Amino acid sequence: MKKLLLVYLLLIGLFVLYVYKYQTDVATTRQWSESKFQGSMDETYVMVTFQVGIDYWKRALKGFEDAAEALNVSVEYRGATQYDVNEEITVLEQVIARKPAGIAVSTMDPKALNPVINKAVEAGIPVVMFDADAPDSKAYSFLGTNNYNAGVEAAKKMAELLGGKGEVGVVTQLSQLNHQERTQGFKDTIFRDYPDMEVVSIKSGRGDQLESKQVTEDMLEQYPELKGVFATEANGGVGVGQAVKDNQIMDSVKIISFDTDKGTLDMIDEGIISATLAQGTWKMGYWSLQFLFHLNKGIVEDEENGSPLPNYLDTGVTIVTEENVDDFYPK
Amino acid sequence: MKKLLLVYLLLIGLFVLYVYKYQTDVATTRQWSESKFQGSMDETYVMVTFQVGIDYWKRALKGFEDAAEALNVSVEYRGATQYDVNEEITVLEQVIARKPAGIAVSTMDPKALNPVINKAVEAGIPVVMFDADAPDSKAYSFLGTNNYNAGVEAAKKMAELLGGKGEVGVVTQLSQLNHQERTQGFKDTIFRDYPDMEVVSIKSGRGDQLESKQVTEDMLEQYPELKGVFATEANGGVGVGQAVKDNQIMDSVKIISFDTDKGTLDMIDEGIISATLAQGTWKMGYWSLQFLFHLNKGIVEDEENGSPLPNYLDTGVTIVTEENVDDFYPK
Repeated sequence: MKKLLLVYLLLIGLFVLYVYKYQTDVATTRQWSESKFQGSMDETYVMVTFQVGIDYWKRALKGFEDAAEALNVSVEYRGATQYDVNEEITVLEQVIARKPAGIAVSTMDPKALNPVINKAVEAGIPVVMFDADAPDSKAYSFLGTNNYNAGVEAAKKMAELLGGKGEVGVVTQLSQLNHQERTQGFKDTIFRDYPDMEVVSIKSGRGDQLESKQVTEDMLEQYPELKGVFATEANGGVGVGQAVKDNQIMDSVKIISFDTDKGTLDMIDEGIISATLAQGTWKMGYWSLQFLFHLNKGIVEDEENGSPLPNYLDTGVTIVTEENVDDFYPK
Repeated sequence: MKKLLLVYLLLIGLFVLYVYKYQTDVATTRQWSESKFQGSMDETYVMVTFQVGIDYWKRALKGFEDAAEALNVSVEYRGATQYDVNEEITVLEQVIARKPAGIAVSTMDPKALNPVINKAVEAGIPVVMFDADAPDSKAYSFLGTNNYNAGVEAAKKMAELLGGKGEVGVVTQLSQLNHQERTQGFKDTIFRDYPDMEVVSIKSGRGDQLESKQVTEDMLEQYPELKGVFATEANGGVGVGQAVKDNQIMDSVKIISFDTDKGTLDMIDEGIISATLAQGTWKMGYWSLQFLFHLNKGIVEDEENGSPLPNYLDTGVTIVTEENVDDFYPK
């Protein structure tokens, strides 16, 4: 009988321990579930672009993935294979039909894409734009480079390279707004802050390497005292580089370019291009996912404005020179 | 004996259950500890301003607190009681000495504060600027209103109010950069997008109510056809409102002002001021803490640039009219 009693006591003891433990567990669970930044793997966020295969998107996607890993959610990458807005519309329609947790979109034709973007927002799917905006759409936010400011940075770097003195030119793509803005920021800054410098010529290379080379040669002939050229896009930069290389004037003419294509990086490595401006593409991807997660989870609310997201996040530029060029080759 | 056997079996069963449960718990704990966005209450983030008592900071502090709650960390609010940079320097020195997890700073005198901000950064303390930047300091990011864009928004709203037609004026504070930018954005937009509108007069009210009233009366005398006035700051707006009210021309002259002081909101309520631009102060606070948390915890890294933060976050403006004015009175 005594033995039996002992066993019963043990049983009761274990039961009490078990109940106690169960309650502790519940308390712990409640505390942890308060972490609002814990997603689940069945939450899928989608990045949609055009020309999906180009290197340019790789860093943006890496940022998107890094945020997904930190927040414990899933991501997908979709888009048009070509520079074709109709293909992008089809892809975006397919993505919307699957009701993802959020979509980050970049587009080369906002007008054509606006109705589809708005359809997603109206269906309750969070949408942000990155890299290239659709300003008249209902997307909640835009994350990308402020092109005017990028031009300002280019001007400061050019002034540093030239010791604040000399004639400079710009090779750009006059038909596109982002290139006009880069040119304007460059011009305004030289005019305002560097009285011993002057922008003597602005020519359009139409985004083409050969044409950019040609207009640079014209510019050099017209302004033999030219000390520097700012190319507002990568093909143009390589074209300017070839003109300067062919004329053997690498020591007297400094080039600043844009973006970090292999051709541009190689010319920096060779000392033909002095510097290029790298856009903050990783940041576009990382903060796009953070923003979408905030909307999808309803983490916080700005009482006055509803959406907690800023209208615009300027992802900035980083100046790449011979010293840090190795960091920018794809790994 | 049979009874005893049963009890033993029960005991063994319970033990197995207990061990099984213990292992499940360990697995769960491991999974949860992977949430990178879980701070601890002994992590203290500090907001530092000047004129700490004014209403303007309340929404920024609310955003800062909302983020702290979501991330489970502590916040403190410190600053100069007066519009006095020396007092702010002293306060910031004291905050730095206590090695907080991060500091969000707003300053009216970046030059004077730069050395102290840099000292904090060099001591390894994450610092971001909000509302008013110190662009030459080592702070990691700036979160605030893009004043040029705010001027653009004001112009669009003015055009909407006037049906895209008529003469308009600006009452501003010509000595301050942020007011120059607001004026420029307004002017550029009217000129570019509204051919039937014209900015006929820009006058300085020096941030003073009486002086703003006076210059508005001069403007009205000089331009009797004037249909609208954009005031780039709140005292000016109230002054413009009084001039229009005293002259009983509330129906023919529309006013757009800036910020959401009680005087401005009251005049919107009375129908004297048609609209005002509310800055995204809550967003400044919320994203400041998010940014500081990212730096302090080392949550992610942008391989190319180190810091995962964007240089600039534009917190945007919201247009306040009679319809939504109630949301903007302090609660």
